[in-house]
Amino acid sequence: MTEEIDRDIQAYVRRLGAAAREASRRMATMDTGKKNLALQNMASLIEDRMEILLEANGKDMQAAQAANMDDALVERLSLNPERVRAMAEAVQQVAGLPDPVGEIDNLRNRPSGIKVGKMRVPLGVVGMIYESRPNVTADAASLCLKSGNAVILRGGSEARHSNQAIYQCIQDALIRIGIPETAVQLIETTDRAAVGHLIQMDDYVDVIVPRGGKGLIERISNESRIPVIKHLDGVCHVYIDDRADPGKAVAIAVNAKTQRYGTCNTMETLLVSEAIAEQVLPDLIRQFLDKGVELRGCEKVCAFSDAIRPATDIDWATEYLAPVLSIRIVSGLDAAMEHIEKYGSHHTDAIVTEDWSRAHRFLQGVDSSSVMVNASTRFADGFEYGLGAEIGISTDKLHARGPVGLEGLTTEKYVVFGDGQIRT
Amino acid sequence: MTEEIDRDIQAYVRRLGAAAREASRRMATMDTGKKNLALQNMASLIEDRMEILLEANGKDMQAAQAANMDDALVERLSLNPERVRAMAEAVQQVAGLPDPVGEIDNLRNRPSGIKVGKMRVPLGVVGMIYESRPNVTADAASLCLKSGNAVILRGGSEARHSNQAIYQCIQDALIRIGIPETAVQLIETTDRAAVGHLIQMDDYVDVIVPRGGKGLIERISNESRIPVIKHLDGVCHVYIDDRADPGKAVAIAVNAKTQRYGTCNTMETLLVSEAIAEQVLPDLIRQFLDKGVELRGCEKVCAFSDAIRPATDIDWATEYLAPVLSIRIVSGLDAAMEHIEKYGSHHTDAIVTEDWSRAHRFLQGVDSSSVMVNASTRFADGFEYGLGAEIGISTDKLHARGPVGLEGLTTEKYVVFGDGQIRT
Repeated sequence: MTEEIDRDIQAYVRRLGAAAREASRRMATMDTGKKNLALQNMASLIEDRMEILLEANGKDMQAAQAANMDDALVERLSLNPERVRAMAEAVQQVAGLPDPVGEIDNLRNRPSGIKVGKMRVPLGVVGMIYESRPNVTADAASLCLKSGNAVILRGGSEARHSNQAIYQCIQDALIRIGIPETAVQLIETTDRAAVGHLIQMDDYVDVIVPRGGKGLIERISNESRIPVIKHLDGVCHVYIDDRADPGKAVAIAVNAKTQRYGTCNTMETLLVSEAIAEQVLPDLIRQFLDKGVELRGCEKVCAFSDAIRPATDIDWATEYLAPVLSIRIVSGLDAAMEHIEKYGSHHTDAIVTEDWSRAHRFLQGVDSSSVMVNASTRFADGFEYGLGAEIGISTDKLHARGPVGLEGLTTEKYVVFGDGQIRT
Repeated sequence: MTEEIDRDIQAYVRRLGAAAREASRRMATMDTGKKNLALQNMASLIEDRMEILLEANGKDMQAAQAANMDDALVERLSLNPERVRAMAEAVQQVAGLPDPVGEIDNLRNRPSGIKVGKMRVPLGVVGMIYESRPNVTADAASLCLKSGNAVILRGGSEARHSNQAIYQCIQDALIRIGIPETAVQLIETTDRAAVGHLIQMDDYVDVIVPRGGKGLIERISNESRIPVIKHLDGVCHVYIDDRADPGKAVAIAVNAKTQRYGTCNTMETLLVSEAIAEQVLPDLIRQFLDKGVELRGCEKVCAFSDAIRPATDIDWATEYLAPVLSIRIVSGLDAAMEHIEKYGSHHTDAIVTEDWSRAHRFLQGVDSSSVMVNASTRFADGFEYGLGAEIGISTDKLHARGPVGLEGLTTEKYVVFGDGQIRT
């Protein structure tokens, strides 16, 4: 690429940034009713333009097939009437969520006579960088709009026709309701340099949310000058304690692995307390093998079946995102917690036990964004948690941890109500 | 520096990191009572060892004077009996604060049968980098300890004898109570390379808190691989609206500027609505000049007195930290909010008005960590806000904003309570 083109792209991205910053100031004090009306309009337009959306998606699908894109990617890219309706429905749901902006918490009297509280406010400008799924365009726009932010969207080039068509619905809804169109902007060049400029523009953008493969996310968080809300690995564990109810344990472990293979909250390693292994492992192994799950185990686990191959140190740290599971027999709770600390990714981990004290030790001691007792790791999800929708799941510790919904797109500032107080 | 020494320093810093990570796991589930006992012991030891502390400080002061250190720095470095007692008192106060660790918020039933809530947990390992004030050693250690974190302290080399003596009190208190000594560690080399290694060690450190001059903080946030809770400029404003009570307006503006000059929450620019300028400015100008404050103003302000020199664009963006004030007459609320957005640093800004709607527009529309109505900006402080103590004031938007106390040193994770639930 010539320097000149790169300067043009930078100038273009910076224009979007300046416009977003300007729009964000107006969005910060926008009426809830007006924001909801815009969202309802967006949802209707998406449904009404079903044919246009499917046609645009058809173009992307053709290009993807011509380029021999891999099946999983094509699957994520594709829209059908059901998916379009689900997209509209998700936008409609965001309209129905309570508006967090302006809420004041903990307003308290201080001895000086002032009242001090915290007011929830938008982050400002969100930069959203994502890959193939076109529905992220509608999800991100609606969550950012509802939370009073402006957003700059950068979708995958493979989905550009679909994203453009969805974006047109958003723009038309904003215009109809009289909300600044620059509250939601789409980077229209597919040039990769645009991403580089976006993540450097810390004067205009307050937070970057990348969604996609690990490579994309690592590159962005290494290069960004702007804080990144990110999700890396999901190496999730279920630990079956020797005081577990065996029926619940088997049901939870099977569900956590097999309900869906490709999601970040799927169990990748099963830990079983030695004292309960004989009771639960034969049944579990049978069920996993019946469902076509490839099993890898520690030495003791391998003794249960010839179909299990030995797990290596790499297995314990791997997010398979596939019908593969590693299983380890551990001496008990402490060993399980040590394994999770050493190999886990601080995403979602569950214990199955009927023992109150052990459950509490696990809850307190395991340092993950979601820690569960007697439930499947598959529940770690914005909809299941009641956030209404999520812009991503964060494995960071600061700011947002776990599923990120409207609240994760806001922050709090202190407000002080006085009546002429001065400090002495 | 030879490469060999640098490798030695890196190995040393990484040993501290590994020990801190290990200690942080034990601190995360440490009894509140035990933490409080350690803090009470720390406070007693600091008081009991008054002479030792003053002697150590004497060495630092001698070295500082020999090195011709500037007066402000020497002032910050110096301890006296009153300051030592205040240090002990601050530690004692942290012991008295509620322990945030383990609190569960918003535990709610979900349709699937699981209960979902958020549990407050420590961040893990805090890296604290600070300059001359020795009391930061005690403040940071006590806040990190109470919030269940491990901390690695790196004080200024000019305070090394004082810091070492305070650190010895901390260590002895931890040993006495049976808390891992590695929960609080002090980097004992004064080699600057140690800071570089500390802020790169993202496998062992979860957050960096720098305290000191702007140069230090900018360098650290540019070079750190670890999230930084930081405070940059405090260009704070008071806006006197034309519907202000003139008496309150004058008292607040004088207090915000003159109660202390060198603090980040001191007013640096006064904005006055044109319609009230004649009523308040003559009195204000007289009071400021009487107190020896140098005034710089816009053209209209300069017309009020020959003692006021014209302000430049640079003045509006400057944190003087000195008896200097810039004053501007604006057409009204909108112009004031625009000025604050353009020149301010998002730290603390106040409006003086009796008008309800204008107060609310200011509260909602000004994007600063503290926004005040009818109160002096000098109130923006952890003690005044009731946080008990602060490790710093954050001008960042994500995670912690404004004064950072115990809560800012914690984060939340999701907890899920089930009874065998699986996802369907």
